[in-house]
Amino acid sequence: MLVENNFLNKITGGIRHNPDQLNRILEADAELIQLTKDCLLAITTDTIVEEISEGLYRDPYQIGWMGAIVNFSDLAAVGAEPKGFLVNLQVKRNTPISFIQSIMAGANAACQLYGSYIVGGDTNHGEHIQLGGTAFGVIPDAKIIMRKGCQPGDQLFISGKLGLGSVYAIEKLLKKKSNFLFFPKARITEGIIVRKLGSCCIDTSDGFFSAISNLMHTNKTGIRLSIDLNELIHPDYYSTMLNSTLPPWFLLAGPHGEFELVFTVAKKHEKELIETASVFGWNPIHVGEIIPDQKLHFRLHGMDISFNPEHVANLYETNAGNLEKYINALFKIHDQWKRLSTNRSKKIAG
Amino acid sequence: MLVENNFLNKITGGIRHNPDQLNRILEADAELIQLTKDCLLAITTDTIVEEISEGLYRDPYQIGWMGAIVNFSDLAAVGAEPKGFLVNLQVKRNTPISFIQSIMAGANAACQLYGSYIVGGDTNHGEHIQLGGTAFGVIPDAKIIMRKGCQPGDQLFISGKLGLGSVYAIEKLLKKKSNFLFFPKARITEGIIVRKLGSCCIDTSDGFFSAISNLMHTNKTGIRLSIDLNELIHPDYYSTMLNSTLPPWFLLAGPHGEFELVFTVAKKHEKELIETASVFGWNPIHVGEIIPDQKLHFRLHGMDISFNPEHVANLYETNAGNLEKYINALFKIHDQWKRLSTNRSKKIAG
Repeated sequence: MLVENNFLNKITGGIRHNPDQLNRILEADAELIQLTKDCLLAITTDTIVEEISEGLYRDPYQIGWMGAIVNFSDLAAVGAEPKGFLVNLQVKRNTPISFIQSIMAGANAACQLYGSYIVGGDTNHGEHIQLGGTAFGVIPDAKIIMRKGCQPGDQLFISGKLGLGSVYAIEKLLKKKSNFLFFPKARITEGIIVRKLGSCCIDTSDGFFSAISNLMHTNKTGIRLSIDLNELIHPDYYSTMLNSTLPPWFLLAGPHGEFELVFTVAKKHEKELIETASVFGWNPIHVGEIIPDQKLHFRLHGMDISFNPEHVANLYETNAGNLEKYINALFKIHDQWKRLSTNRSKKIAG
Repeated sequence: MLVENNFLNKITGGIRHNPDQLNRILEADAELIQLTKDCLLAITTDTIVEEISEGLYRDPYQIGWMGAIVNFSDLAAVGAEPKGFLVNLQVKRNTPISFIQSIMAGANAACQLYGSYIVGGDTNHGEHIQLGGTAFGVIPDAKIIMRKGCQPGDQLFISGKLGLGSVYAIEKLLKKKSNFLFFPKARITEGIIVRKLGSCCIDTSDGFFSAISNLMHTNKTGIRLSIDLNELIHPDYYSTMLNSTLPPWFLLAGPHGEFELVFTVAKKHEKELIETASVFGWNPIHVGEIIPDQKLHFRLHGMDISFNPEHVANLYETNAGNLEKYINALFKIHDQWKRLSTNRSKKIAG
């Protein structure tokens, strides 16, 4: 199980389940609450703390933007229509008002992208700047989608190629480059299409490995990728990595992902989903299928690997957020895979 | 204007108003959003930061309880029926799991008081512990209540006698007493009655002076109290203050209030409100009326005073949260009032 989920299960063990809530804990990116007979609310909350304290986001407009997007992306993954956003802002007593105004402008701009609005919030004084928020929306018909819901045989898609979030983190934290712009968008329209035709959905905000670990654990299934692991990565970010000492697949490891959706569709709905998507100018990318065996099966540089993705997804947490240790741990896995490949070559040769 | 409101106006100046939102900024304790034609959402968010860092709340169960209550009290002040609560928890990396479980248990117990539930949330690692949350509910009929809405001639009530919040802060911060229990309740049922029959409402979470400053500013009216200022204070807390060097009315100054409601009722609805309240075993306390003159008129120890309550409500902020300076500033006002009384006595004598 993911370290984070294990922690959440421990601290929520004594909490009574709301009979009006359609999902159990961790079963959906946003909470689904039947407010009245005809009104289904989707609501989610997320706070940016470490991303600011570690220097990943410094620009106030970007901080505001990100505080909104992390929440709207969770609404996207349940296919909700956004209705509003509440801001939880913490600043230092001496933070200039212009800095705070830029945070609000960034959050406001992100809301406006989805036809949504900042409707309220609260501000506090603390020892550091942090930004949280709550986004909410409605699901206007009876069809819902959650992380839970896929079956073996369902086809696996991503909403777009991956790697942006990790490339940004690498450029910013390892290379100390300050000119890399990062204003990602939540996949709201795509999420609405996926909700109507798909069987499960999650965003990649904690990285691809975390996303599929969640899907696999929640659904007690596995995944077989039909494309090489490196082909999940956007060509631009793949190129960036070729000039780096880091293997490109590290971009999928997280924990700073992007805001694509990973979702499944039953075979009978696959054609309709692709046709509907194309009407909106969107081309979902087919990457694999759901299998009963609870492992991730994939190919990397010609190697066949079957693997428990939770191990990769947990590495940042098990290394207590230490970036250097985390990257060393990723390299250990990379070396295991390389040895696997060498052994196999020997076997074939022998 | 209240310093806090002035700040909020500055940072929200560029934000577009949601056409589905029934209140403008600062016009209601919770935001009122028309989700669908038949579904009116009330939603509010509040975070406890300084109360924890300054040592006002140390017990994790109490921290959890307070994180929920501050939010449910805002729902109470708009007369919403609670539907759920999202937790934003920040802990240190080394915070014991049992401590976090107690926070969650406290929040859960507070939710259960109102037939509500924790439905989700997020957790983060930071340098200190803090707890925020978002409470939401529905308003099941067309009648709404906000801070805005009273007219001169409307009668002013409080839901119960005041002072608990400040007595607790004094015992805890000044006298360092650790055995004073503080598990206040939000006035949910009372708020629903007030919504149906009242004209405006606010809670006393930031203190009585802050509450009436908000009402006066929002409604461009004043208030004439019909009882002595000291009579607003609960007899138990009044007695406590008689053994103290602090004047009892300091309990009304805030900024750590309790969770009573201050509200108004048009004269024509006064009788029905009192009768409805009595059915629920509740006796709202009549304390004054709304007047056109934008000041607070009150009596204290036989003195007639007319005063702008914003000055008192702002003192904690204008003294940058420094407790000693804050109390000195309150004493200055107390001395002014005493001189006023002495001068008047002289005048009468002369």
